[in-house]
Amino acid sequence: MKKVGLKKTLPELVADQIIDYINENQLQANDKLPNEIELMEKLNVGRGTIREAIKILNSKGVVIIKRGIGTFVAEHIGISDDPLGFNFENDKVKILQDALELRLLIEPQIISKTIDHITEEQIHELHDIIQKIEDLIYKNQDYTQEDVAFHTMLASISGNQIIKKLMPIIAGAIEQVIYVTDKSLSQETIIQHREILNAIQKKDKELAKQAMTKHIQDNIQRVQSMTAQKQTRD
Amino acid sequence: MKKVGLKKTLPELVADQIIDYINENQLQANDKLPNEIELMEKLNVGRGTIREAIKILNSKGVVIIKRGIGTFVAEHIGISDDPLGFNFENDKVKILQDALELRLLIEPQIISKTIDHITEEQIHELHDIIQKIEDLIYKNQDYTQEDVAFHTMLASISGNQIIKKLMPIIAGAIEQVIYVTDKSLSQETIIQHREILNAIQKKDKELAKQAMTKHIQDNIQRVQSMTAQKQTRD
Repeated sequence: MKKVGLKKTLPELVADQIIDYINENQLQANDKLPNEIELMEKLNVGRGTIREAIKILNSKGVVIIKRGIGTFVAEHIGISDDPLGFNFENDKVKILQDALELRLLIEPQIISKTIDHITEEQIHELHDIIQKIEDLIYKNQDYTQEDVAFHTMLASISGNQIIKKLMPIIAGAIEQVIYVTDKSLSQETIIQHREILNAIQKKDKELAKQAMTKHIQDNIQRVQSMTAQKQTRD
Repeated sequence: MKKVGLKKTLPELVADQIIDYINENQLQANDKLPNEIELMEKLNVGRGTIREAIKILNSKGVVIIKRGIGTFVAEHIGISDDPLGFNFENDKVKILQDALELRLLIEPQIISKTIDHITEEQIHELHDIIQKIEDLIYKNQDYTQEDVAFHTMLASISGNQIIKKLMPIIAGAIEQVIYVTDKSLSQETIIQHREILNAIQKKDKELAKQAMTKHIQDNIQRVQSMTAQKQTRD
């Protein structure tokens, strides 16, 4: 929420102070925050205000409250589970189409930077991920999470911090629709993931770019034809 | 915060139900929510739980609480004031560089779709925005908000809902650093904004793409040379 022109409440101000504390002390994901009494002393406010502030930070995705254990810095600090508000879009297919259009602008372009930075170990890890995806496909199970992990890891290695944060959000848009269990999509996915990873392993930037472009374009076309089929059925 | 594997509290569950209510009734930005008593009856929970749920939704940027007036759907529903957690990045210059790199992938590419969809009225509105930017520059005042508005409006007209949501976030990354008040940057900005808008007005897609590319590349170079200067000074 943009707070422009709105006065913040005391718990909101204290929440901001706790954010400053996290930054100044360079706390990382899963680090434990000082307990309530320590925070009361540091920030000179009452227990009720600290609790309210912690609840606000919990809702914002900054901290995670483990009852009886303590409060910890969240894994993806400051990023909520739906940062771009997809839950509030009525047309989920449009969101998926727009996500794929955006991915087509980003993923094929940054793959050359990924090739510049990738290590042997990371290539092994990516092989493991696509193997896991194949196993899940043959078991007829949902592989969305692993698919998002594959694309997010490639994006992360490029070194662009914003694209790294963005990729799970836009690659995860597919979770909003049901098409992911489609069999033909899965077979294509296996082949195309292998093509992308092979090109990366060969350090062939142009081939990697082409393979990624083809992979995303294929997804775009599949969503289009499924939407067309659905409209015919309705 | 990813809630995977964590049990939600009652207020969190009620918050989810209120989100469902907003979606099902297609409430729009600034629409008023039912009052506490109505929500208590609809959702069959006590006043304390409703209040907690509303606070959660407030922190998540879903609603805005106007004390004594009521609770309203937020302007940018479901998008917090820092959705990608830039506040938690220590290296603000890197964030700006990464934001510009991402913008270079997106903005020149989508401008042809913007040209396809733009109306005469929107062109007038864009002229007003760049005029306002020029006025602010000559008055030596901060024009970040108007600059973000210019780029966000161009992105929005393209029709891609995700890019529309993303643009204020990545174009706003410049607010994280101080360079925006640099005089030479401002003069270039005036000229380049005019070039972009003139090309759009002429419906010249190639020229518009070139103008946008040049505009962003110029910003990238300027950040680079300023960083280099700063390092020399330090």
